[in-house]
Amino acid sequence: MTADQSAAFDVLAIGNAIVDVIARQEDDFLRQAGIPKGSMRLISAEEAEALYARMGPGREISGGSAANTTAGLAALGSRAAFIGRVSDDQLGHVFAHDIRAAGVDYRTPPANGGRPTGQCLIIVTPDAQRTMNTYLGSCQELDEADIDEARVRAASLTYFEGYLWDPPAPMRAIRKAAAIARAAGRRVAMTLSDVFCVEGHRADFLEMFGSMVDIVFANENEAKALFQTDDVAVAAEALAARVPLAIVTRSEKGAIVLNGAERHEVPIVPAARVLDTTGAGDLFAAGFLAGYTRGRPLRDCAVMGTIAAAEVIEHYGARPEDDLKARVARHFG
Amino acid sequence: MTADQSAAFDVLAIGNAIVDVIARQEDDFLRQAGIPKGSMRLISAEEAEALYARMGPGREISGGSAANTTAGLAALGSRAAFIGRVSDDQLGHVFAHDIRAAGVDYRTPPANGGRPTGQCLIIVTPDAQRTMNTYLGSCQELDEADIDEARVRAASLTYFEGYLWDPPAPMRAIRKAAAIARAAGRRVAMTLSDVFCVEGHRADFLEMFGSMVDIVFANENEAKALFQTDDVAVAAEALAARVPLAIVTRSEKGAIVLNGAERHEVPIVPAARVLDTTGAGDLFAAGFLAGYTRGRPLRDCAVMGTIAAAEVIEHYGARPEDDLKARVARHFG
Repeated sequence: MTADQSAAFDVLAIGNAIVDVIARQEDDFLRQAGIPKGSMRLISAEEAEALYARMGPGREISGGSAANTTAGLAALGSRAAFIGRVSDDQLGHVFAHDIRAAGVDYRTPPANGGRPTGQCLIIVTPDAQRTMNTYLGSCQELDEADIDEARVRAASLTYFEGYLWDPPAPMRAIRKAAAIARAAGRRVAMTLSDVFCVEGHRADFLEMFGSMVDIVFANENEAKALFQTDDVAVAAEALAARVPLAIVTRSEKGAIVLNGAERHEVPIVPAARVLDTTGAGDLFAAGFLAGYTRGRPLRDCAVMGTIAAAEVIEHYGARPEDDLKARVARHFG
Repeated sequence: MTADQSAAFDVLAIGNAIVDVIARQEDDFLRQAGIPKGSMRLISAEEAEALYARMGPGREISGGSAANTTAGLAALGSRAAFIGRVSDDQLGHVFAHDIRAAGVDYRTPPANGGRPTGQCLIIVTPDAQRTMNTYLGSCQELDEADIDEARVRAASLTYFEGYLWDPPAPMRAIRKAAAIARAAGRRVAMTLSDVFCVEGHRADFLEMFGSMVDIVFANENEAKALFQTDDVAVAAEALAARVPLAIVTRSEKGAIVLNGAERHEVPIVPAARVLDTTGAGDLFAAGFLAGYTRGRPLRDCAVMGTIAAAEVIEHYGARPEDDLKARVARHFG
């Protein structure tokens, strides 16, 4: 792919509009709450309230997987837009402010009077691992009417997250967006998001790959879950057989890019410190897509992904704080 | 003072209940907005909205000067209570959650249907200096009815912030609390909070000192403003002549404690890094009062203050994140 000057956006992303509530806790907290470390689970408003009451003091930082990716893209100088539903409440205002302040074009109208803005209660343990407990709230109210055909057609690439498959209306919105993008000759990318998404929507994901998706981001566990294998190489090859471009991220072991018969293994860029791994995958996708939509070689795209991922794990919160453009420039000299 | 086992609380603090919205900005941002660096100013809801729209992505972390002090006290193992008014909205819930999760006894009922929860828009420049823009919101609705006589009587020491002088109802609440504490033979402490508080309420502060206040915390600029002098030594001595115990903090130059004829100069404890100076004074007061209410020598109290202040400037946000008890224990061996 080469940079498309005719497009108004490099990437249009569709995802859950979430404000993260981040608290440090010892491992005991998770054990006592019966929450598997490193997991992501959907919780009800009541469960969220009960868990929040037990959590230590938090910090609220805008999040949402695909939203984090757009913030990373904008930080890298790409033109990014986001579609996702907040509520007309204080946290909804925070989300909308932060994503716009990050330089992302965001216009989805807030929902009125329904569920509150979605929140993710994130427990960060001393090993920097994050455990996510998501109350989707108004995210569930995103629907097909929010997919503006002109905006989708105007984006070189449309990207969306597997998390959207859970409630029915957002999933229909995604299918509409993917169909518009394909019809316009644009690229479509998705992330599998989480093992629970893969397990809940395996058939649907595989069907999407065959007809509508050009690029898939998966981490090791998601890829293995998708193809029900313990062998990451087997899973990566199975994915590559189904989509033109597959990227499998492997935490500290780096990433594998599979493009037809091409294979690239890229090591991580070491982080200055590892404080909170929330958003590492989201920022990897940001770096990769920033390179990809500029027509950079696939290996460089993956390196840009690892640079962006390294930055976000150095601090709390899943959006970049340091100058990503400068980091990329330093790396490529 | 020696530790009072009969008291239910070591410190009851009264202050503004504020959620901080913290954003990093270059110095140019302040210049363009015409805001003096390092200042604290009160802004209207409209000004807050306009400034927020210009600010970069933020992080929301519970704050409020005296509230931060109680969080520091609790982190140091002291029994702390807080009185301050939030609204019944999302940020109000965040404030109430965070202060309770920090281990502080907090029971002030939220206001319903009035102004939203108070917010402080904090610009942190690359030199770690903070510039604060406060929309008081529901803080202004604190009144005398919120001062429960039994709770004040049950605290060894009642502490309040000069910031409360601005709106009339909270100021009356403070006077009521101070009178109850004095009548019960308890100690009363206050912080001058800011130069603008001093300049607006000089006569009232001086009158309070003579009749109701045992301990005053002031930074160098506040002390100088109070006595309209450029000489910090002159200001410190003038303060010491009016209150039994005066503590003048001098940023990187440490603190001076003045108690009758006693004088102690204490240097700072170096911070591992200086990222955001918000809350340094609040945490100094926390450390000092934790020592004071345990009957520690005044010099040790000041050292505890500098240890707590050093921790809070190492990260964003004005509440402690690291284990303050362990830091104090390490220092005193």
